[in-house]
Amino acid sequence: MADTTAAWEPVPRSRTFELVLARIEEQILAGNLRVGDRLPPERELVELLGVSRAAVREALRVLEAQGVLRSRVGTGPESGTVIAAMPDAGLTQLLRLHIALANFPMDDVVEARATLERASARLAAGLVAGAGLDSIREPLVRMDDPALPREQFNDFDTAFHVAIAEAGGNRLMADMTVAVRNAVRHTLLTVFNGLGDEWERVAARLRGEHHAIYEAIAAGDADAAGDLVEAHVRGFHRDIVQMVLGDPESAKA
Amino acid sequence: MADTTAAWEPVPRSRTFELVLARIEEQILAGNLRVGDRLPPERELVELLGVSRAAVREALRVLEAQGVLRSRVGTGPESGTVIAAMPDAGLTQLLRLHIALANFPMDDVVEARATLERASARLAAGLVAGAGLDSIREPLVRMDDPALPREQFNDFDTAFHVAIAEAGGNRLMADMTVAVRNAVRHTLLTVFNGLGDEWERVAARLRGEHHAIYEAIAAGDADAAGDLVEAHVRGFHRDIVQMVLGDPESAKA
Repeated sequence: MADTTAAWEPVPRSRTFELVLARIEEQILAGNLRVGDRLPPERELVELLGVSRAAVREALRVLEAQGVLRSRVGTGPESGTVIAAMPDAGLTQLLRLHIALANFPMDDVVEARATLERASARLAAGLVAGAGLDSIREPLVRMDDPALPREQFNDFDTAFHVAIAEAGGNRLMADMTVAVRNAVRHTLLTVFNGLGDEWERVAARLRGEHHAIYEAIAAGDADAAGDLVEAHVRGFHRDIVQMVLGDPESAKA
Repeated sequence: MADTTAAWEPVPRSRTFELVLARIEEQILAGNLRVGDRLPPERELVELLGVSRAAVREALRVLEAQGVLRSRVGTGPESGTVIAAMPDAGLTQLLRLHIALANFPMDDVVEARATLERASARLAAGLVAGAGLDSIREPLVRMDDPALPREQFNDFDTAFHVAIAEAGGNRLMADMTVAVRNAVRHTLLTVFNGLGDEWERVAARLRGEHHAIYEAIAAGDADAAGDLVEAHVRGFHRDIVQMVLGDPESAKA
């Protein structure tokens, strides 16, 4: 007889609040609860769902932390717990955390960056406008300073890619692009700091590629902007990140 | 003097637990806390961060709900609160909720779907393999049944697109693709149900497009697979969703 004792694990504590969470989410996804709608009061949820008050409270707290619910104080018709539009910041924060923890292979993150940033650059090129262009140009100019420390170079590099994502005017695409770009921020800083004397050569290459991307967007050339960003992302990881971090198979995001 | 009274709003209650959340997240993003690492005990966090025990508990509860922390019972070296790899399901659930609540314009969602599903189909075509192909083919065959109710047609339609995303072997891309596809599930069902007599014609078109996409992936033709999926997503929303829901400017995801 095989020894199956090792396969036994303790039964997880019952997590009633997760069932409450699921019920509220169902109502939102079905369109029955919309932004601004009031949630039934706590005691009513307790009755409707047949669970403890503690479970309801815990579920509400989680949804509040996620930005799904907002409490309005007072006693008027506007008071109570209402459905809120989740702030984009909450989503990008969670995506960032997920990417940091899920330990996706670097190749997967590069592929996602190439896909999203290519599409974002194409959208940005189609919407050439004064203010959007300025916010892309600003970090570009700052990165031209040869005395800029590597950490700040990395910050402006991130800002440049984020500005392109936001200039496209598609918030959903921008949220995902920004989250994935921000997730590699620490890795890129490690790479920059590990470059030693090679830094100047690498910085010069990055500056040149950034300027070319900017020019294509400013000219409204979507094809060129998309191709250049994709080549920039893939080339940087292939030639520079792997040079510093070594074997791509073992490198994690 | 202008009446500025209306601009005054109550100061939000202090949210100490959010500061605790931010501190823990910083440690994760900096790579100081990795999957499997143990978090300092509650009383130590209270001292380290100079906050109340209640604030620490609340923050831990939120991170547990997000799947960032997992509690291990017992007293051995393996017990305590450890950093967990967030399950993909948690991320896609939150993305889905975010898309449902953020009320992104339908055009933005279509653009994101076209971008992600094009890239996913290209990856899938590059990895033609028995098991992956079978999971794409299965919902395709089920949708061929002319007696299939519209709700189930929609479920298999979702399953078809999810299987393509997962066959590409890139979990990060798959997570985002699945979340965006799932977010439009309810909208598509509303559209299917609103079609009346047009349903048979629309279902026939979708079946034909799905089969063509499957054939391109099975043949390993990444260019064709990507083009066909993108045309399928954009065409369906342009010709069919807008026919039922009307003016794209007012249609929301």
